[in-house]
Amino acid sequence: MIKECIENVRKNAPLVHNITNYVTVNDVANVLLACGGSPIMSDDLEDVEEITSICGGLNINIGTLNRNTIPSMFLAGKKANELGHKVLLDPVGAGASKLRTDTAVKLMKEIKFNAIRGNISEIKTLALGSGSTKGVDADVADAITEASLDNTVAFVKVFAKKAGGIIAVTGATDLVTDGDKCYVIRNGRSEMGKITGTGCQLSGMMTAFLAANPENELEAVAAAVCTMGLAGEIGWSNMQPSDGNATYRNRIIDAIYNMDGETLEKGARYEVR
Amino acid sequence: MIKECIENVRKNAPLVHNITNYVTVNDVANVLLACGGSPIMSDDLEDVEEITSICGGLNINIGTLNRNTIPSMFLAGKKANELGHKVLLDPVGAGASKLRTDTAVKLMKEIKFNAIRGNISEIKTLALGSGSTKGVDADVADAITEASLDNTVAFVKVFAKKAGGIIAVTGATDLVTDGDKCYVIRNGRSEMGKITGTGCQLSGMMTAFLAANPENELEAVAAAVCTMGLAGEIGWSNMQPSDGNATYRNRIIDAIYNMDGETLEKGARYEVR
Amino acid sequence: MIKECIENVRKNAPLVHNITNYVTVNDVANVLLACGGSPIMSDDLEDVEEITSICGGLNINIGTLNRNTIPSMFLAGKKANELGHKVLLDPVGAGASKLRTDTAVKLMKEIKFNAIRGNISEIKTLALGSGSTKGVDADVADAITEASLDNTVAFVKVFAKKAGGIIAVTGATDLVTDGDKCYVIRNGRSEMGKITGTGCQLSGMMTAFLAANPENELEAVAAAVCTMGLAGEIGWSNMQPSDGNATYRNRIIDAIYNMDGETLEKGARYEVR
Repeated sequence: MIKECIENVRKNAPLVHNITNYVTVNDVANVLLACGGSPIMSDDLEDVEEITSICGGLNINIGTLNRNTIPSMFLAGKKANELGHKVLLDPVGAGASKLRTDTAVKLMKEIKFNAIRGNISEIKTLALGSGSTKGVDADVADAITEASLDNTVAFVKVFAKKAGGIIAVTGATDLVTDGDKCYVIRNGRSEMGKITGTGCQLSGMMTAFLAANPENELEAVAAAVCTMGLAGEIGWSNMQPSDGNATYRNRIIDAIYNMDGETLEKGARYEVR
Repeated sequence: MIKECIENVRKNAPLVHNITNYVTVNDVANVLLACGGSPIMSDDLEDVEEITSICGGLNINIGTLNRNTIPSMFLAGKKANELGHKVLLDPVGAGASKLRTDTAVKLMKEIKFNAIRGNISEIKTLALGSGSTKGVDADVADAITEASLDNTVAFVKVFAKKAGGIIAVTGATDLVTDGDKCYVIRNGRSEMGKITGTGCQLSGMMTAFLAANPENELEAVAAAVCTMGLAGEIGWSNMQPSDGNATYRNRIIDAIYNMDGETLEKGARYEVR
Repeated sequence: MIKECIENVRKNAPLVHNITNYVTVNDVANVLLACGGSPIMSDDLEDVEEITSICGGLNINIGTLNRNTIPSMFLAGKKANELGHKVLLDPVGAGASKLRTDTAVKLMKEIKFNAIRGNISEIKTLALGSGSTKGVDADVADAITEASLDNTVAFVKVFAKKAGGIIAVTGATDLVTDGDKCYVIRNGRSEMGKITGTGCQLSGMMTAFLAANPENELEAVAAAVCTMGLAGEIGWSNMQPSDGNATYRNRIIDAIYNMDGETLEKGARYEVR
């Protein structure tokens, strides 16, 4: 199934509308192209409804939210809901400021998200209404360990039921759940945290996977997470001694560009709980 | 002549003012530096007139247009016109939304553009007043084929006359015309479409070529198109098996950085119709 | 001491709040991660006070300033001052437009900056109230030569006293002074000028060095300058014949990622005047 998910992205080439931050936007666009999708960015209130209408998915990322783009997120989200498009929320920095937390919570109230992807601190903030996100990174105290895994899986399942969509928590161990089943994914490398925006990139790619696999949302999201993690492993294996995080960034996107269904199926490391 | 065009960019190091989208802006800046120009970005209404005054060219790209930057485009464009600077329009996504189409059309009415560069769907939209742009990519139905080439050349020539400037249509085959002569350019590789912003990069570089070759606008634009396409070919020849679109992006800019007049002259593949 | 400065960044992993331009922001984020810091970008008036509160340093860069972000710079700067955080100003393009010059001057009046980093034309503009910045690059007439070095050191020392913070002038030769001592640094390569944003990157990294070395501001700023310059030298030594400025950009960030205290101490080339 994981295999079919990426093959469907390459086959259907979904157009993804991104309202996202200006920090990692270029990498989001290139990852979308690498996986077989097609990106378009548009965040003006007058533009977003029409642009989202011609797309198959909408990726809302609050990384550099502002007074102009927040209303656009709501407008685009409602339009995408109306049209039955897949919509994803990346609540960057929820828990780090009231504006970020409130905006994410309000977006969740007014828009139906097919999936929400964040680090554990961001997801805890959304689930509990407050949190302690360390900037845009997860708080160390929140990190998922083998000891806390069972509890975290249970917690995320409950939140997914309440949210009415898929929750993807990414970090050293990734969790993807619809409330019933939970994929526990162990692809990836810790060095990915030394590149800005691997989370944002994943959210963009995840939206393409959702749009290209409309009937298999849970598997689509899990497949996107496996793709990113496996690309991190493959990219790392191509590193030379003098390479660092800038080259690693390119190596990961390159690995996604070259990823085929077989490689993904063989390299995906997950269990379902 | 092609050779002299790039040599003049390196000799004159034109400063180019860019009001452009936040998706590909970094690559636009690095391409401008690679070809021998110098970039400056400024989009605030209070800033653009003065900034454009110290430049030799102005590149207006509507990729992520918004209520704040649209008025800046008009103001900067009029100032640049007044000063006799070269001005270029990249109508990203014209045809994909009313805001984009209307803004591009209105810009064309109020500002004299020395050149307009877009994909065939965007150019058709501007010529016909409406279109079917697939997001920021050309509609497959619009693609220039050998069969449709004669008709498309004729169509673009008519539009160039009407627009009063050079029209550059880029895609698998590129057309550059001032209404009389039309360069049909066959450099480039299809894989360039898997990188975000090669069109935006070309528009930035084209503005530098125009500014550095004020008396030879048609050749300057054609030379910029050949430079980008040839860089795509050279960059591809430097790719390793595990490389993908992220590395390819860098390889293309690197190839522009290393391009000299001789290489360009020898590698440029075009005919004039 | 230079050695300890970078080691403290890796040990303390300071979170740096950046209100910066959208051209080079991604590289700024990746450089901050490369040197051991952690970046967060936020520029909305409602968001910046809270975000800066959880950080150790604030990097204000006016490269693409606008009516929305300028008030945020003042608000964040005042909050950071109140909390005793390290605050840095990068006056990109001061001298190139009234908005840029006035904003930089007004920021200096209302906010206490621990350090200001710019090219010689930008710094002259701030010191003298007007200037002749060539876009975002220094005017050739302003370039520091061995002949003008003594005068420039004296001039910058006076300005540092007046400004009440460290002044870092970067170019072929770099000067870092608190008004008493002046580091004259000779690391780096001229090819770094062919990459967009090495100055912005340095400003981001410098803020992390300041935050991680609160008691040794002068050495911290000098160490950041040496790190960037040495990374430029190491990065260049890893270049292949077909590489250009795009790959060089990555090589420099990679070199920072791999830089340890020993390498920096051995490679730093400076004298104190």
